[in-house]
Amino acid sequence: MEPSSGSRDARPTVTLVAAVLPAGGSGERLGGATPKQFCAVQGRPLVSYTVRAMERISWISNIIVVVSPENIETMKSIVEKYGHKRVTVVKGGITRHRSIFNGLKVFAENEFSNQLLQKPEVVIIHDAVRPFVEEDTLSKVVMAAKEHGAAGAIRPLVSTVIASTADGCLDHSLERARYRASEMPQAFLFDIIYEAYQQCTNYDLDYGTECLHLALKYCKTNAKLVEGTADLWKVTYKRDLQAAESIIKDNLSQQVCVITDVKEAVAQVGFRLHESLKNQIKVEAISISLSKNDSQLQNIFSGQCYNFVCVNDKKYAIQETQQLVDMLEKSNIALLYPVVLISVHLDISENISFSIGMEELTRIKKFAREMKKKNTLVYGLLIQYK
Amino acid sequence: MEPSSGSRDARPTVTLVAAVLPAGGSGERLGGATPKQFCAVQGRPLVSYTVRAMERISWISNIIVVVSPENIETMKSIVEKYGHKRVTVVKGGITRHRSIFNGLKVFAENEFSNQLLQKPEVVIIHDAVRPFVEEDTLSKVVMAAKEHGAAGAIRPLVSTVIASTADGCLDHSLERARYRASEMPQAFLFDIIYEAYQQCTNYDLDYGTECLHLALKYCKTNAKLVEGTADLWKVTYKRDLQAAESIIKDNLSQQVCVITDVKEAVAQVGFRLHESLKNQIKVEAISISLSKNDSQLQNIFSGQCYNFVCVNDKKYAIQETQQLVDMLEKSNIALLYPVVLISVHLDISENISFSIGMEELTRIKKFAREMKKKNTLVYGLLIQYK
Repeated sequence: MEPSSGSRDARPTVTLVAAVLPAGGSGERLGGATPKQFCAVQGRPLVSYTVRAMERISWISNIIVVVSPENIETMKSIVEKYGHKRVTVVKGGITRHRSIFNGLKVFAENEFSNQLLQKPEVVIIHDAVRPFVEEDTLSKVVMAAKEHGAAGAIRPLVSTVIASTADGCLDHSLERARYRASEMPQAFLFDIIYEAYQQCTNYDLDYGTECLHLALKYCKTNAKLVEGTADLWKVTYKRDLQAAESIIKDNLSQQVCVITDVKEAVAQVGFRLHESLKNQIKVEAISISLSKNDSQLQNIFSGQCYNFVCVNDKKYAIQETQQLVDMLEKSNIALLYPVVLISVHLDISENISFSIGMEELTRIKKFAREMKKKNTLVYGLLIQYK
Repeated sequence: MEPSSGSRDARPTVTLVAAVLPAGGSGERLGGATPKQFCAVQGRPLVSYTVRAMERISWISNIIVVVSPENIETMKSIVEKYGHKRVTVVKGGITRHRSIFNGLKVFAENEFSNQLLQKPEVVIIHDAVRPFVEEDTLSKVVMAAKEHGAAGAIRPLVSTVIASTADGCLDHSLERARYRASEMPQAFLFDIIYEAYQQCTNYDLDYGTECLHLALKYCKTNAKLVEGTADLWKVTYKRDLQAAESIIKDNLSQQVCVITDVKEAVAQVGFRLHESLKNQIKVEAISISLSKNDSQLQNIFSGQCYNFVCVNDKKYAIQETQQLVDMLEKSNIALLYPVVLISVHLDISENISFSIGMEELTRIKKFAREMKKKNTLVYGLLIQYK
């Protein structure tokens, strides 16, 4: 019943899993007009990264994003612009709990649409402003929820927690080791959390914030607590947006994969590129035929490489590039961050004139424009090599 | 007895104030070999920013930095390199409380030096990894400590705090509104906190983390809790270092001050610079005589401006620049972040040849090298203007 620890086979043995992402916050603590979930990080709204983090996981069937009424259209346009799949946008309530409840109703009531979504066995609840959640953590809370009815990620406390007296003095401090910070994701058997929301008081709906508490209070379910990773932190302040941006940039620049044809002259260029880059960045250079579904390449995708240099000497350079993009799209990691793909067309003919025609160039440019919408940045490079 | 709310007159009415900065952490949570207080942020160790934040405050008489024995030399070389003043480096113990206790002993026992430092009325305790503390906050906790015996900055909880059962399930969650995160700075009447440390058990010294708790337990002092700003957060994880770097970069680039002589032709250049820059950055252009101690300029220093363009047409350009640097050094804000100073020598003579000689250039270069050590980056620019 335990999920595997590796991320490559983390699918939990649960029939149907859905995710509800409350994204109705007003972003007061950020000190800006734009709610934090819609703030741009590397040019893309934060919520889009979180949706991607869910979307790339094949065993999550539906992703419900709950936003405040005035942001419905914004959210729908984000879903469209970044090509998000399996997403339903739902109108939130005036508090966090009311918003989550609305998200759950999509599976049980006809309030929001004519067509009910299929009720999941387990539902994940995850903040839209925690974009760095890993499949492994999601799998662990889902499996724990299946076994215990409810589960949530926790982290050690960073600061001591204290209670104050009515006049603003220290009453007592809590022993730090005995307590934990309750984070997200959390997961529940759908029937349990839905029952808890149906039973809970207006006071809970208006002033509560903790789903695990509702499951305990109304369904006597003691949630299983799962130690989460430091990456689970919630983007709360402006500095968190800056930290998120740094993390995303780091993820993008950590390694590059040089892919060449097996032909010797081309493979040699790949080898030289590897030699000249290896002191600055982690480089992997492989010579394969892209028309075969190569396992080596699949391993690189799962290793979360986002930068590719694709070297070929074919007359129709674009075909190779298209093949690589297709493989990337089909791979389970999907496009969590922008993928940079430099397509190098190697001209090894004796001919002085460029072997690549204007027509081909126009085709590549058009292809690059299309790909940009899908978060893949394609660049072309022509090298004469003798 | 209340401190003023503005930062320009925030000196609390306390005889003598000292600060103890525990900097003995091992940085485990950062996941790196270098303890976080010694990690470079914009090329400078984090602890140096925190020391500067204390040092610029004229009413803090002594700054005690407590580091683990193996980092004594590192810390001493940081003090020397960045020209920190009023700093004493003290050997820490194996836990946080033991380190703070060692820091306090400098004022009461001959354990660490032949020469006792003068015992302060109030002592501030502040983490070396919270570099963004403001004078206003420090003043508030010091004044509250004078009145109540102890005081500490608090922040709202970001996550719900929960207690777990022995088998790792939810026992209960705390009502978030009733609790606060205890942050730093904290301040104490010296006699109270020193007494608390002298009386406290080895268990407290080894496993405790909260100074306010010791004051309550051993001296029956209920600390006054002071709401702190979001900037007080503790650099804990790698992402926090990245956030700190972003904040420092932001602070550096927010505004520029253009200073010109009162002479009309020169003032005009200042006005034009203002016009052409004002859409990109907050600019203030003032025309003053640097030889007078101008209150307008003092206001700009207290407004934490770190970028200066100093325009003059004097034959000995360097004198004006030196005057400005002197004023910057004497100003209370001191050099919290690198100051960028562009010295523009305006050549308005009819003569085609440059009016500034090679000798002067060499002098400016030498001056710039000297200033760099003091965290002031001086650049020279020669403009012919007709």
